[in-house]
Amino acid sequence: MPRRTNQLRDVTIESFPTAAAGSVLITAGQTRVLCTASIASQTPRWIPTDDDGNPEHGWVTAEYAMLPGSTPDRKRRGNDGRSTEIQRLIGRSLRAGVDLKRMPGLAVTCDCDVLSADGGTRTAAITGSWVALVHALRTARTDGLIKANPVIGPVAAVSVGIIDGTPHLDLDYPLDSRADVDLNVVMNHKEEYIEVQGTAEGTPFDRKRLDQLLELAGKGIRSLIKTQRATLKKLKQSKA
Amino acid sequence: MPRRTNQLRDVTIESFPTAAAGSVLITAGQTRVLCTASIASQTPRWIPTDDDGNPEHGWVTAEYAMLPGSTPDRKRRGNDGRSTEIQRLIGRSLRAGVDLKRMPGLAVTCDCDVLSADGGTRTAAITGSWVALVHALRTARTDGLIKANPVIGPVAAVSVGIIDGTPHLDLDYPLDSRADVDLNVVMNHKEEYIEVQGTAEGTPFDRKRLDQLLELAGKGIRSLIKTQRATLKKLKQSKA
Amino acid sequence: MPRRTNQLRDVTIESFPTAAAGSVLITAGQTRVLCTASIASQTPRWIPTDDDGNPEHGWVTAEYAMLPGSTPDRKRRGNDGRSTEIQRLIGRSLRAGVDLKRMPGLAVTCDCDVLSADGGTRTAAITGSWVALVHALRTARTDGLIKANPVIGPVAAVSVGIIDGTPHLDLDYPLDSRADVDLNVVMNHKEEYIEVQGTAEGTPFDRKRLDQLLELAGKGIRSLIKTQRATLKKLKQSKA
Amino acid sequence: MPRRTNQLRDVTIESFPTAAAGSVLITAGQTRVLCTASIASQTPRWIPTDDDGNPEHGWVTAEYAMLPGSTPDRKRRGNDGRSTEIQRLIGRSLRAGVDLKRMPGLAVTCDCDVLSADGGTRTAAITGSWVALVHALRTARTDGLIKANPVIGPVAAVSVGIIDGTPHLDLDYPLDSRADVDLNVVMNHKEEYIEVQGTAEGTPFDRKRLDQLLELAGKGIRSLIKTQRATLKKLKQSKA
Amino acid sequence: MPRRTNQLRDVTIESFPTAAAGSVLITAGQTRVLCTASIASQTPRWIPTDDDGNPEHGWVTAEYAMLPGSTPDRKRRGNDGRSTEIQRLIGRSLRAGVDLKRMPGLAVTCDCDVLSADGGTRTAAITGSWVALVHALRTARTDGLIKANPVIGPVAAVSVGIIDGTPHLDLDYPLDSRADVDLNVVMNHKEEYIEVQGTAEGTPFDRKRLDQLLELAGKGIRSLIKTQRATLKKLKQSKA
Amino acid sequence: MPRRTNQLRDVTIESFPTAAAGSVLITAGQTRVLCTASIASQTPRWIPTDDDGNPEHGWVTAEYAMLPGSTPDRKRRGNDGRSTEIQRLIGRSLRAGVDLKRMPGLAVTCDCDVLSADGGTRTAAITGSWVALVHALRTARTDGLIKANPVIGPVAAVSVGIIDGTPHLDLDYPLDSRADVDLNVVMNHKEEYIEVQGTAEGTPFDRKRLDQLLELAGKGIRSLIKTQRATLKKLKQSKA
Repeated sequence: MPRRTNQLRDVTIESFPTAAAGSVLITAGQTRVLCTASIASQTPRWIPTDDDGNPEHGWVTAEYAMLPGSTPDRKRRGNDGRSTEIQRLIGRSLRAGVDLKRMPGLAVTCDCDVLSADGGTRTAAITGSWVALVHALRTARTDGLIKANPVIGPVAAVSVGIIDGTPHLDLDYPLDSRADVDLNVVMNHKEEYIEVQGTAEGTPFDRKRLDQLLELAGKGIRSLIKTQRATLKKLKQSKA
Repeated sequence: MPRRTNQLRDVTIESFPTAAAGSVLITAGQTRVLCTASIASQTPRWIPTDDDGNPEHGWVTAEYAMLPGSTPDRKRRGNDGRSTEIQRLIGRSLRAGVDLKRMPGLAVTCDCDVLSADGGTRTAAITGSWVALVHALRTARTDGLIKANPVIGPVAAVSVGIIDGTPHLDLDYPLDSRADVDLNVVMNHKEEYIEVQGTAEGTPFDRKRLDQLLELAGKGIRSLIKTQRATLKKLKQSKA
Repeated sequence: MPRRTNQLRDVTIESFPTAAAGSVLITAGQTRVLCTASIASQTPRWIPTDDDGNPEHGWVTAEYAMLPGSTPDRKRRGNDGRSTEIQRLIGRSLRAGVDLKRMPGLAVTCDCDVLSADGGTRTAAITGSWVALVHALRTARTDGLIKANPVIGPVAAVSVGIIDGTPHLDLDYPLDSRADVDLNVVMNHKEEYIEVQGTAEGTPFDRKRLDQLLELAGKGIRSLIKTQRATLKKLKQSKA
Repeated sequence: MPRRTNQLRDVTIESFPTAAAGSVLITAGQTRVLCTASIASQTPRWIPTDDDGNPEHGWVTAEYAMLPGSTPDRKRRGNDGRSTEIQRLIGRSLRAGVDLKRMPGLAVTCDCDVLSADGGTRTAAITGSWVALVHALRTARTDGLIKANPVIGPVAAVSVGIIDGTPHLDLDYPLDSRADVDLNVVMNHKEEYIEVQGTAEGTPFDRKRLDQLLELAGKGIRSLIKTQRATLKKLKQSKA
Repeated sequence: MPRRTNQLRDVTIESFPTAAAGSVLITAGQTRVLCTASIASQTPRWIPTDDDGNPEHGWVTAEYAMLPGSTPDRKRRGNDGRSTEIQRLIGRSLRAGVDLKRMPGLAVTCDCDVLSADGGTRTAAITGSWVALVHALRTARTDGLIKANPVIGPVAAVSVGIIDGTPHLDLDYPLDSRADVDLNVVMNHKEEYIEVQGTAEGTPFDRKRLDQLLELAGKGIRSLIKTQRATLKKLKQSKA
Repeated sequence: MPRRTNQLRDVTIESFPTAAAGSVLITAGQTRVLCTASIASQTPRWIPTDDDGNPEHGWVTAEYAMLPGSTPDRKRRGNDGRSTEIQRLIGRSLRAGVDLKRMPGLAVTCDCDVLSADGGTRTAAITGSWVALVHALRTARTDGLIKANPVIGPVAAVSVGIIDGTPHLDLDYPLDSRADVDLNVVMNHKEEYIEVQGTAEGTPFDRKRLDQLLELAGKGIRSLIKTQRATLKKLKQSKA
């Protein structure tokens, strides 16, 4: 039975053993992204310091890359414009879910490495690395690196688009390559927008279309946040 | 008298003499961007060819850079993630306004060099380089490089944002640095969206806010398209 | 019960779903390397061609990288001298196990991405990517890209070293960092050497020590080749 | 009426609004160069310091680039050997007109961006950026960054050459491309040489020719210095 | 009379005047490598420091490059994977011959520039730069930069290989390009191994072959160490 | 007895064995530059072709680099602005001495590697590489790569300068670092100028000074051309 137009692909977010403080593998259909969150106790130089010379807040940044074997035609290594743009998006999205002032002096780098690419890698990277980030922050707190819990609430993302005039949720590669409009939405648990990035790939879209797409995206993200919460609960238990 | 929150800055788009086929200087308040459109009769290799080996369509691409003197603290030369992201946005926006099939074998590069930066440089670059592009395509047609007119209709862009809870049109640098939400909108003359890029710089925003911002952007873009049309008319006359 | 000095770590080589023609995850203790083999039907230019302009043989090359989350202190992306050296070693080793003349015009790139690093990543990469390579060559033959089977026989690798005067098989990171001598050995199923790379990290070693280490390495490689063969058998069955 | 062989092209040097401390647009025929002078209060590390750790003198450096639209065939961005050589020349020339010891701790970067190129861009860049530099130094003095006036006297430059055996002043691109000898001369107001760079593009030249060219260059530079002085006077008045 | 298979090429190591503290030209047949050892009193940052903030030991590193004219087809400048691998080997080899703790705070860089390449350039570079290094350390001691003599004992290297089934000592380029096995051996004066790097270029080799090659290499290195000692003696006398 | 102000340093130009077609070592006092001329039968793409698709003329280019051991403080490898500028000068100078139309399809690269630097390296590079170039062209003619002799006549270079008000010929490093004016002159055997590059390092210079310096340079170049001719004669004999 084919997927309905308002249905997410099968999504799992699982712990994956690496050396990073937080580390999960997110799978959405045939898209697989390894998300690790590494902790360092040295924040960037530009962060302002208080009177004692201590940084006033922490920082969260992201890197995004596609492994060569992630695409049928081997993908060359190395950063291009697209990946730079994506990792800036991921970083901004994650920072919207934490209170940086509650993690002074702590720097977390979330690395999103696409192991298998079938559309929606940037939104899967945001959804997955949120879980890795929270797990890493828990570790940082347990280890005494920070005192308070900087987490504000979940951040998840999904792509929606219009194919042959019909809105679709969660585009895989075959859908994405046929889409007239492609909209990536990042939201929090209060159904507020963190990022809205819509692009007309061919046909410009009117306001009515935009409204339909935003509706569909909201539905998908509510479901993704449930999956994030379930994984975070499991990770807590396995640790205890 | 200070600018109202729903008022554009003073905008002019004027011809500026360079060696490029199309060349204008757009001024929006203290923001100044030199937009040139250079023509080449060699399109990228990846464009499919017909049975006679001729490229099936043309191409439009953009580059964006800030000159060192454009900011009070001298800006170092060289491409960074931000400018890569911006020039991809400009290129997509311009391509949405032309029918590439009506300009086979023609490649146009729109260079947007920021001479003076006071916020809104990427949207000014889109609005200005659209005029340079149309002018260059006219030249290409006069010179017999293309037979048909590939122009579909105007493309213009503006930024809107929320400052202290109030929506504002056309953010200059002082406003932009205080904005909680920053939304760049690219539209055509039919009031259809080509790009919608909204970012919560701090506070996520709900659906109602998004609606207000889109309204405001639409108003600004209608006005910018009038300015584009006036300049294009003048350029045509001065040529004749 | 601690591992004996002449005992390998627990090793598994399993199929891992990516978009590449061959794709396995090799695990040796806490070391995990994703090995993918991607096929392209364009060989490097320097390969000589026959009278019809067809390349006389195929090519196998390798790339090696450590993901940022693979080490406790986040590893920066980007190629350094060490990884260049390692990927040259992997490429030479793999080529020793295939008859390039039996795969004319076929180029296979084996990408070895270290997901988790605990010593012995280069030898795990060789052992794992051999399996990915064979699997990819089977696919190429099924798809009609090549007619004959270019595989000569298994190639596997292991590291051995001297710690506190005692030879040890299969060094993990804690052992490796204490080793006086570090020897990487690549062998085939006939117990012939393909590469022998020994380095005195501190104390030079005499001939007797070298003999002991080569003995130990041979033992380990015989066992690794058994694991490779078991995985390849399973992959064949799951495909049928 | 065509230009005489001993006549400069029409030259103007005008204020152009950017964010830099000094900023002018120099126009010489169809050659247009935007020259900005940006001030920073951090000098290079190699400058020696006095007993209190303060730098003993200031520094002036230059960068030169051609914008893509400055040439009929679009010029690719990025530094090449030619532009490196030119910016070193500009920097040396400007430094010859100031007493660096009278501007301790002050670093000025003069950026010369060619908007339209029709020959003589490097000499126009020197002549124009001298005005931008003086204007920036005035600002620095007004702002209290330096106490004394570091300006020694005007520095200007012109190119001369031999075409079909006849010496010509101020080569535009059509002349330059036909020149057998190309000589760039940088002089001060005392008719002393700061730089003399002569190149035989084809035919070596004897001493007599060199003498004629130096004579012609001197005449041109005297006229350019008058234009510089007039612009600087106007800038002072508009400020007051 | 052709060279015997167990005979070195004619080898000379001579002083060559440069500005470096140690500087020799090693000639092995038609292979010529200029080896210079430059002294700096600033060691890398990662070296641990004692309680007074002084570095606990010194460092020796190497760079290797082939000059463009060193090969019949001009060799392009710039580092590639091969040269990176070689300079890492040279650095490790040289460090095995000195006690870094006896040269605290001293950094020596050995530059090996191949002036003429006819096989065996990496082993000639090791053998030659050892002499340059020792000479530079003598100078450092004379100049009071270090108090003790950090030299442990000679380090030299040679390549051996199998051509048409026969082991050969000291491969020149024609031999090297025909070799089935290529083994580079670095040894000290006690006949202990520092590096053993064997590669099957085509045909894997068994244990018996490896033993023969190691034997042959040992013979060659004993002779090279004699030449090193003779040159070092001469250098000492000429200084006195 | 110290050198007189109008006297060259001791200069020798000797054959030095490398793999390049032409190869000499020029020594001027403590300055030593290895100059090799490598031949390739593929000229740059931009060279126009005749009706049969054959390139209409040949090309001569140069590269310049300082080896790390050439300066007392080790010089880092890699191209900087200075070396780019110098290699452009060398290339232009050498091309002025050959008729490129008499060497169609032939490309010669002259590599100037400074082994020991004590001032005047760029002028020594020109003088030395001229000899290497002529020798390489002789070889090319003997090998039948070109039919005619493209050599027009000798090209040599020297630096002159003003120290404490006195003109000096052939500046070594101690003189150069004290010079108020530094003038590099490239001339041919007819005493015609190919390049004149004068720079006021501190004090601008008047016409009279320039005349004195040109006189002195001419004297030095006449002597250098004699040395070039003597070496070329010797090289011809040793070949016969």
